[in-house]
Amino acid sequence: MPRLLRKYLPIFEWGRGYGREALSNDLIAAVIVTIMLIPQSLAYALLAGLPPEAGLYASIVPIMLYALFGTSRALAVGPVAVVSLMTAAAVGEVAQQGTAGYAVAALTLAGMSGAILLVLGIFRLGFLANFLSHPVIAGFITASGLLIASSQLKHIMGVPGGGHNLLDIIGNLFLQLGRINYATLVIGVAATAFLFWVRKGLKPMLLKVGLKPRMADIATKAGPVAAVVATTLAAGVFSLEGHGVAIVGTVPQALPPFTMPDLSLDLMRQLFVPALLISVIGFVESISVAQTLAAKKRQRIDPDQELIGLGAANLGAAFTGGYPVTGGFARSVVNFDAGAETPAAGAFTAVGLAIAAVALTPLIYFLPKATLAATIIVAVLSLVDFSILRTAWSYSKADFAAVLATILLTLGFGVETGVMAGVMISIGLFLYRTSRPHIAEVGLVPGTQHFRNIRRHMVETDTSMLTIRIDQSLYFANARFLEDYVLDRTVDCPGLKHVVLMCSAVNEIDLSALESLEELMHRLSDLGIKLHLSEVKGPVMDRLHGTHFLKALTGEVFLSQYDAYSRLHPSNAAVA
Amino acid sequence: MPRLLRKYLPIFEWGRGYGREALSNDLIAAVIVTIMLIPQSLAYALLAGLPPEAGLYASIVPIMLYALFGTSRALAVGPVAVVSLMTAAAVGEVAQQGTAGYAVAALTLAGMSGAILLVLGIFRLGFLANFLSHPVIAGFITASGLLIASSQLKHIMGVPGGGHNLLDIIGNLFLQLGRINYATLVIGVAATAFLFWVRKGLKPMLLKVGLKPRMADIATKAGPVAAVVATTLAAGVFSLEGHGVAIVGTVPQALPPFTMPDLSLDLMRQLFVPALLISVIGFVESISVAQTLAAKKRQRIDPDQELIGLGAANLGAAFTGGYPVTGGFARSVVNFDAGAETPAAGAFTAVGLAIAAVALTPLIYFLPKATLAATIIVAVLSLVDFSILRTAWSYSKADFAAVLATILLTLGFGVETGVMAGVMISIGLFLYRTSRPHIAEVGLVPGTQHFRNIRRHMVETDTSMLTIRIDQSLYFANARFLEDYVLDRTVDCPGLKHVVLMCSAVNEIDLSALESLEELMHRLSDLGIKLHLSEVKGPVMDRLHGTHFLKALTGEVFLSQYDAYSRLHPSNAAVA
Repeated sequence: MPRLLRKYLPIFEWGRGYGREALSNDLIAAVIVTIMLIPQSLAYALLAGLPPEAGLYASIVPIMLYALFGTSRALAVGPVAVVSLMTAAAVGEVAQQGTAGYAVAALTLAGMSGAILLVLGIFRLGFLANFLSHPVIAGFITASGLLIASSQLKHIMGVPGGGHNLLDIIGNLFLQLGRINYATLVIGVAATAFLFWVRKGLKPMLLKVGLKPRMADIATKAGPVAAVVATTLAAGVFSLEGHGVAIVGTVPQALPPFTMPDLSLDLMRQLFVPALLISVIGFVESISVAQTLAAKKRQRIDPDQELIGLGAANLGAAFTGGYPVTGGFARSVVNFDAGAETPAAGAFTAVGLAIAAVALTPLIYFLPKATLAATIIVAVLSLVDFSILRTAWSYSKADFAAVLATILLTLGFGVETGVMAGVMISIGLFLYRTSRPHIAEVGLVPGTQHFRNIRRHMVETDTSMLTIRIDQSLYFANARFLEDYVLDRTVDCPGLKHVVLMCSAVNEIDLSALESLEELMHRLSDLGIKLHLSEVKGPVMDRLHGTHFLKALTGEVFLSQYDAYSRLHPSNAAVA
Repeated sequence: MPRLLRKYLPIFEWGRGYGREALSNDLIAAVIVTIMLIPQSLAYALLAGLPPEAGLYASIVPIMLYALFGTSRALAVGPVAVVSLMTAAAVGEVAQQGTAGYAVAALTLAGMSGAILLVLGIFRLGFLANFLSHPVIAGFITASGLLIASSQLKHIMGVPGGGHNLLDIIGNLFLQLGRINYATLVIGVAATAFLFWVRKGLKPMLLKVGLKPRMADIATKAGPVAAVVATTLAAGVFSLEGHGVAIVGTVPQALPPFTMPDLSLDLMRQLFVPALLISVIGFVESISVAQTLAAKKRQRIDPDQELIGLGAANLGAAFTGGYPVTGGFARSVVNFDAGAETPAAGAFTAVGLAIAAVALTPLIYFLPKATLAATIIVAVLSLVDFSILRTAWSYSKADFAAVLATILLTLGFGVETGVMAGVMISIGLFLYRTSRPHIAEVGLVPGTQHFRNIRRHMVETDTSMLTIRIDQSLYFANARFLEDYVLDRTVDCPGLKHVVLMCSAVNEIDLSALESLEELMHRLSDLGIKLHLSEVKGPVMDRLHGTHFLKALTGEVFLSQYDAYSRLHPSNAAVA
């Protein structure tokens, strides 16, 4: 029982050895992460189309639950940019932004996402996330970053806007060019410029004036807080609200409330696909961060337990006024760099945010939304990285096609279409390649027992014998391809008596392929040609035993290709 | 130009050598096939929910067009059972059976199906049909046969009914049990029994009384005509219509009319998926028959030209009052057995059917629908074959799962769901298997240079060296699996200095896998372990050249595993 408990509640593992030093490290990390998370949580709520407090709530109970169930020591769970954007796209389909129904649908989405993650974790289906290939993820993150940044321009310009793809977003902004609110624009541009400078220029400057690297780092992380404070003061002092600057306004001064998602079947049906995509994308983002950070300290992450941890976090979000969450890259790295040793750092962060939710919310009444938009833009533009296109192009055109399609479709049709198309294109290209396998005709390398491609090497062959090496498992999609290839080849070889299939790279023969082989054998037999196999692997041979094909085989199964070569034409043996 | 013409119009190929003997053989085959097709065409139109003449029309112009464009010498194109059922399911979704809209939607379906086939043919995409695995096709045909037979019971019982899955169909019949029309039932049961007897008992009897096998065969094929004549006479003489027996009634006495499919975008959007499925299923059925028959005469079928031939046939059906058609199994075999030598036999059949459409339609006024239903039932029950379940079970559980799911889903949710699920399950299981490849730890077979699985063979190993043979291409879905496997294995090996990946079965390394290998290399390097590769294939090595991974590789790339074994630990060489 205690072993099971430790497995499903990793807190029992790290909790036992928890001491004073870990406590102090975790506390320091929590303070830094809390300062970073306050503006970020508000901003991501804005991106998701939700009231600002939803961002804070989504960071409190979910973090606590992840601390109980998760396996990563440094992962910081909460709202992240891509998932916030996906939430806005999904919930926008079923409810009007700003209505009560919108916030409730976001809860439903978090609840469904949590349930899906839990189910995947309990049934150990974490491997499904592997079907999101690296290039597709890279393309998707880059395109999402561009989409997110452009979606925030309306807040910088102080105009209405919307749209879930780049053309719509830009088009809508274009229509509003005449209605720009210049007070908002000044604040937005100033905040964006300041934050970019904090990111690029502040740290070197602080180091130059003699600050210690650690302190310079912390000061850099606090940059967004400075922007928040400065613009909030400006908005309050100069009554910018009267000049048309959108501000955050009243935020309830309270701990996360108990909320109930809408569990009507109809809504759940509409949100199922988005919830699934959010779960998978969130899981992939989270697990990559968790594994990267764990590797630095030689710790291991259990992907299936991670699913359970993230599932619990999302269920927590659904019942406490949040929306879908996952492990974020930026916040986790900050947490790790700040010295967090255990998930307790996350729990302390949650306490810090809870205090903020209760005590600090009146202070942000005058906070301009443009400042939050600036925070988002600066954060997400660091995700944009087109170098994957060059890397993929130089390595493999198939990977390049998948990346390019993912980027273009995400920009052109939104996040859901983009990521689904990326996955389907990757799988489709893989299936296409396996359906037309590389097939080499091989001959004997003189003086050895090795057989190599006759097009790449000087080899000996025998006109009465055709040896074909298939570089792929044989399954339904390529079964007929092999049949056609062999039959076409035999047409040109008048003296042919034997066809040998060299199976060193055949890891599987499925029933369709077996039937095709049988068909091939019969057709070759009609032409007076025998079919042989060589170098069949153990697992494949185990399965062939007892089949009609093996019983009816016109030729033999040879242990090695050299056996086949020397036995089918005894004079060959002398040659070698 | 003439070469291109011969390629796209195979008639120029076989037409040149057409002589008297071929003509006489083709004419005889055409007469036999025409006799067989008259009742069958009427019956399949009934199955598709269309007026009987639609079945005749679908057999006239389409056959002519296939004769021009197709490559098979024996294939007989026209309405077939499975495609008729799929037509009923698809068109039933957009229009009410018996309305003009229903017939027009069937034309649209044929037109779209023709266009899809043409496009697939022109872009040489015939290989796509390979993704329908043999077990899935076998399961689908068996389940469709059961669905079709049960859907015809309402005509045998003389009651209304409907439904697109087995439960609905049986349930609807059950509700009508009290309203059976006994006159219809007598005709239906008698016709069914007679046709079964013709199939099983007639031929042996005729042979016994001294008829030649060829004549006995022809008589057997004419059985349905006898049933049609007898029941039509009975219905006419005894005025069975007055007793509630549904009869065919007035069939227009005319050649196929020129018809215009409804090309509205909305309808085409609704019919797109069904049209795609009908195209693919029809193509697969047709090509299997064509290849089987061609093989018997050492002829070759060009799958892409077949797509063009079937596409033209379906477009023809759309503009001449038909509905989707394809090459049928039963009729093609009859055509072949009757001695058809060229596609001209098909053209003569079309002429025969045209004569029937003009001259014979008044004669079938009294033909009971129950007789047509009996024809269908007897024809499709011969398609039902559950032995594929046993075959698949004994060979591979994955194939068994695909076949069972296809059968159950087709019976439970109809033909479209069934076949799509079958394809997706086959692909899913293939991806699942490739995502967790067989990985063997190998050692040296003493006295040889061969390396084999340490679990299956007595081999030599070296504690400072772990050699892993991956029996699968490395791609996104299994990249992380390998990484986890190797890292987990290294935990138990304290003295480990070298990990060698033996790549003889690795036919591809995609970008995701390359990144995973690089990650693995870094993690192993942190543990003081070098990563080596051996037996990398030419095409894979070509691609690795110039990558960052190869430049940063901590170990070496060895030509053979034996090289790696002897060079990494020189004392090993002495052992062998």
